[in-house]
Amino acid sequence: MNSHKSLLNLLNNKSARVGIIGLGYVGLPLLLRFHEVGFEVTGFDNHEPTVSMLQKGKSPIRHIKNEAINSINDGKTLITSDISLSKACDVLIVCLPTPLDKEDKPDLSYIIDLLKNLKEHFRKGQLISLESTTYPGTTEDVVLPALEEGKLKVGCDLFLSYSPEREDPGNKDFTTKTIPKLCSGYTESCSELAKILYGSIVDEVIMVSSPKVAEMSKLLENIYRAVNVGLINEMRVIASALDIDIYEVINAASTKPFGFNPYFPGPGLGGHCLPIDPIYLSWKASQVGVESRFIQLAAEVNRDVPNQVVNCLKDHFNVEGLELTNKKILVAGLAYKKNIDDARESPSYEILRILDNFGAEVSYSDPYILKFPETRKYKFDLEHVELNEENIELYDAIILATDHDDFDLEFIQSRCKLLLDTRGVCNYSLANVIRL
Amino acid sequence: MNSHKSLLNLLNNKSARVGIIGLGYVGLPLLLRFHEVGFEVTGFDNHEPTVSMLQKGKSPIRHIKNEAINSINDGKTLITSDISLSKACDVLIVCLPTPLDKEDKPDLSYIIDLLKNLKEHFRKGQLISLESTTYPGTTEDVVLPALEEGKLKVGCDLFLSYSPEREDPGNKDFTTKTIPKLCSGYTESCSELAKILYGSIVDEVIMVSSPKVAEMSKLLENIYRAVNVGLINEMRVIASALDIDIYEVINAASTKPFGFNPYFPGPGLGGHCLPIDPIYLSWKASQVGVESRFIQLAAEVNRDVPNQVVNCLKDHFNVEGLELTNKKILVAGLAYKKNIDDARESPSYEILRILDNFGAEVSYSDPYILKFPETRKYKFDLEHVELNEENIELYDAIILATDHDDFDLEFIQSRCKLLLDTRGVCNYSLANVIRL
Repeated sequence: MNSHKSLLNLLNNKSARVGIIGLGYVGLPLLLRFHEVGFEVTGFDNHEPTVSMLQKGKSPIRHIKNEAINSINDGKTLITSDISLSKACDVLIVCLPTPLDKEDKPDLSYIIDLLKNLKEHFRKGQLISLESTTYPGTTEDVVLPALEEGKLKVGCDLFLSYSPEREDPGNKDFTTKTIPKLCSGYTESCSELAKILYGSIVDEVIMVSSPKVAEMSKLLENIYRAVNVGLINEMRVIASALDIDIYEVINAASTKPFGFNPYFPGPGLGGHCLPIDPIYLSWKASQVGVESRFIQLAAEVNRDVPNQVVNCLKDHFNVEGLELTNKKILVAGLAYKKNIDDARESPSYEILRILDNFGAEVSYSDPYILKFPETRKYKFDLEHVELNEENIELYDAIILATDHDDFDLEFIQSRCKLLLDTRGVCNYSLANVIRL
Repeated sequence: MNSHKSLLNLLNNKSARVGIIGLGYVGLPLLLRFHEVGFEVTGFDNHEPTVSMLQKGKSPIRHIKNEAINSINDGKTLITSDISLSKACDVLIVCLPTPLDKEDKPDLSYIIDLLKNLKEHFRKGQLISLESTTYPGTTEDVVLPALEEGKLKVGCDLFLSYSPEREDPGNKDFTTKTIPKLCSGYTESCSELAKILYGSIVDEVIMVSSPKVAEMSKLLENIYRAVNVGLINEMRVIASALDIDIYEVINAASTKPFGFNPYFPGPGLGGHCLPIDPIYLSWKASQVGVESRFIQLAAEVNRDVPNQVVNCLKDHFNVEGLELTNKKILVAGLAYKKNIDDARESPSYEILRILDNFGAEVSYSDPYILKFPETRKYKFDLEHVELNEENIELYDAIILATDHDDFDLEFIQSRCKLLLDTRGVCNYSLANVIRL
C-alpha cells in the first residue's frame, strides 16, 4: 500500500499516532483534543520542567486544569523531550514559537532547529503540519526543502500542510473544537490528509488554495487587531488632549448597529501574537520591495504607550514638585491580558524597565505569575506582592496595567496613595485616581 | 409658561413644528420620519431644483421613493427656500454638508452662513439641533455663540443640542427609526428636550455627557472605517506583490468567529463621510498640538488607489507595447458604492481625471447617474453610456469601479476587450480580465 493510502486509513480509523511538538498555549490544548477524540498522542517539549510537570499530571498553564492533564495518563500517551520518538508518530504537528530576533526580524530558529533534529527521523507515511504563525512562504520555502533533503518526496512519501493556530486563552465562548480551522496542504494529497486529520478534532475545517494563503490569513487576523489597538491608543491621546473621555466615546460609537467594532486602549500590546505577527508580514513585504506602513505605525504607536504611562505618572509627581526617583511604584498585572498567566511581550515589562531607569523602586503584583519570569530582554529579581491593606500602603503609586478580575479595585482605590489606571476601569471621581 | 415648559408640551403632544434645514441624504429621510409620526414639518433647502422637485412630489434621491414624497403633500407640510419661515418652527434641525476646503481644512461655511441668515429669526422656545458631522467643539464653540448673539440665552430661552446623523444609504437592514441615535444637549434642559424630540422618531436615543463626546463618537465610527479600508488597500498591494489573492485571504480570515471583521479593498474611498470626517478630527487634534498619524496614513493610502488603478492599466498596455494615450477607456460606476446614486468624493472622478491627464479618451457608465454631476473639482461634459453590446466593443478597456447590481458582469466580461476589476467580483480565469 502506498504512503498516502496507508496514512489515510490510519487517520480515518483514528489509529494514527499524533505527535505534538511544543506543549505551550497552542500545543497542549491540541494534544488534549486529539487524545479526547481517541488518537494516541505523543507530546514533545525540550523544556524539562514542562515535561516533568505534565508527566506528574500537573498543568503548566493556568486555564488548563490538572484533571485534563490527568486524563492523558492512560499508559498510551507519551510526554517526552526525546525527538527520536517522532519516528513512531504518523503525524507531527509543529507548535513552536516564532518570535522576533534582536533586529526585529522573524526568528524561525525554533522551527529550523527542529527540522535539523528531525532530519534523520523522518520516514515514509508521515504528515507534518505547521501551526506556528509565520510569514507567507514559510511552509514552502523553509519547511518543504528540509523535508526533501533526504530521499523522501513530499506529496508522495511524506506529506506537508500548514494550519494556523487560532487559540485564544481565556476566551470562554470558543474551544479548540469550535474554532473553525484554516488549512492547506502543499499538494492535493497533502490537503486530503490534513483535512481528515483536523476534521476529526474541529467542527469545521476550511481548506484554502495554498499554504501561503493560510499563512497570510492568520497574519491578517492579527494585523487587523494590532492596527485597531494602535488606532484607539492614538485616539485616546487625542481625546485626552481635547478633555474627552475616550471610553465614553467608544461606548457611544458602539451603539451603532453596523460598521463599527470597538477596540479599547490599554498600556500597550502584549502576547505572543499582536506585537510580533504583523512584523512577520512587514518583513516579508520588505523582501519584495513593498512598504507596510500601517503595520509600522501600529508598532510605533503601541510600543510608545508604556512611555506614555510612565510620563503620565512622572508629570503627576512633577506637578506636586516631586520626582519619580526613589518612589515606590507597583505595577498591578504582569500578564498581557486579564485572567491569564501569560506575560509574553507584556507591556508591564516595559513599564517596569522605564520606571527602573528613572530610579523608581519597582514591584509588581500578579496572582497568576508568582515569580518574575525569565525573559531574554528583562531581568528583575521580583516576586508577586499581594495587594492587601498593609502592602498597598507601602507604595507611592500603583499602576493598574492588567484588569484581572482577582484585583479588588474598590479596595485598592480606597487604600492606595495614587492609582494610575491604564484600562478605563477605575473610578475617576476619586481624588487619588488618575487615568492614562 | 416658560420657554422650556412650553416646548416640552409641544414636543410631548407632537404639536411642535419641526424644521429640517438641508434636504439631502440626511435631512430628507429625517423630514419624512417626523412627518410619519405626526409632526408638522417644514423642509428648507436653498437648492431650487431640489425644492421644486419635492414640491412636485418627486424624489431627488434614488433610494427614496416618489410615493414617500407624495405622502407629505397634505397641505400642512412646507418645502421652501425661504429661511424666514424658520420663525414658525419650534425645532430646527440642521443637516447641512460639512466638506473640506481647498487646503483640506474643515469648511463650516454652510453652517456659518445659515447661522447668519437665521440670526434675525431666532425666537424664544426654539430647539436647534445640529446633525452635521463635525469636529469636537463645533456645537459649543461655533453654534452656541451665534445663538447667543442677540438677547436670547441658550438653556433658558433657546435650546441647543447635537445629534450626529447615522444614515447609511442603501442599507436594507436599518432605517432612520431603527438606528440608535446619539444625542447631547448643551445644558440639562436642552438634553431633556432633545431626548423627547428624537425619542419620538427613533427606537433608542443614547444621551452622552456633552456635545463634544457625541461629535467625537461620530468621527470615531468613520475613522475606524477609513483606517480599516486603508489597511486593507495596503494589504492588497502586499498580497499582490506576493502573488496572493487578497479576497481569498479576507474570506479565510473571516471564518474566525471572534476578533476579526472583514473590510474589502476597492478603487479608493468615496462618499461624504469616510474621505472627509477623519480630517475633521485630525485638524482639531493639530489645533491642540497632537498628531493623528493613523488618519493621515489612511488618507494617503486611500487617496493613492486611483493612481494605482490607472497605473495598473497603463502597465498592462505597456507590456503589450501600447500606451494609454488616445485609448478609449470607460469607467463603469460613478457612484462611490453599489446601488446608490451618490457620487460625492467618488474615486471614479479621480480615475477619470488621471486617465484624462494621460491623454486617454474617457467615458463613464452609471445607470443611476445619467449626467456627469457638477462638482467643485471635476469638470467633464459626459453622459452615462449604456453597457450594451455595441457600446462595449467601442472601448479599449473598461474599469469596473462600482459593482452595481445593474451591471451584467458576465455579459460585459464576455464582450469587452479588457476589463480591470477594482472590486474583486469578476472572473480572473478569463484572459481579458485583470484585477487591481
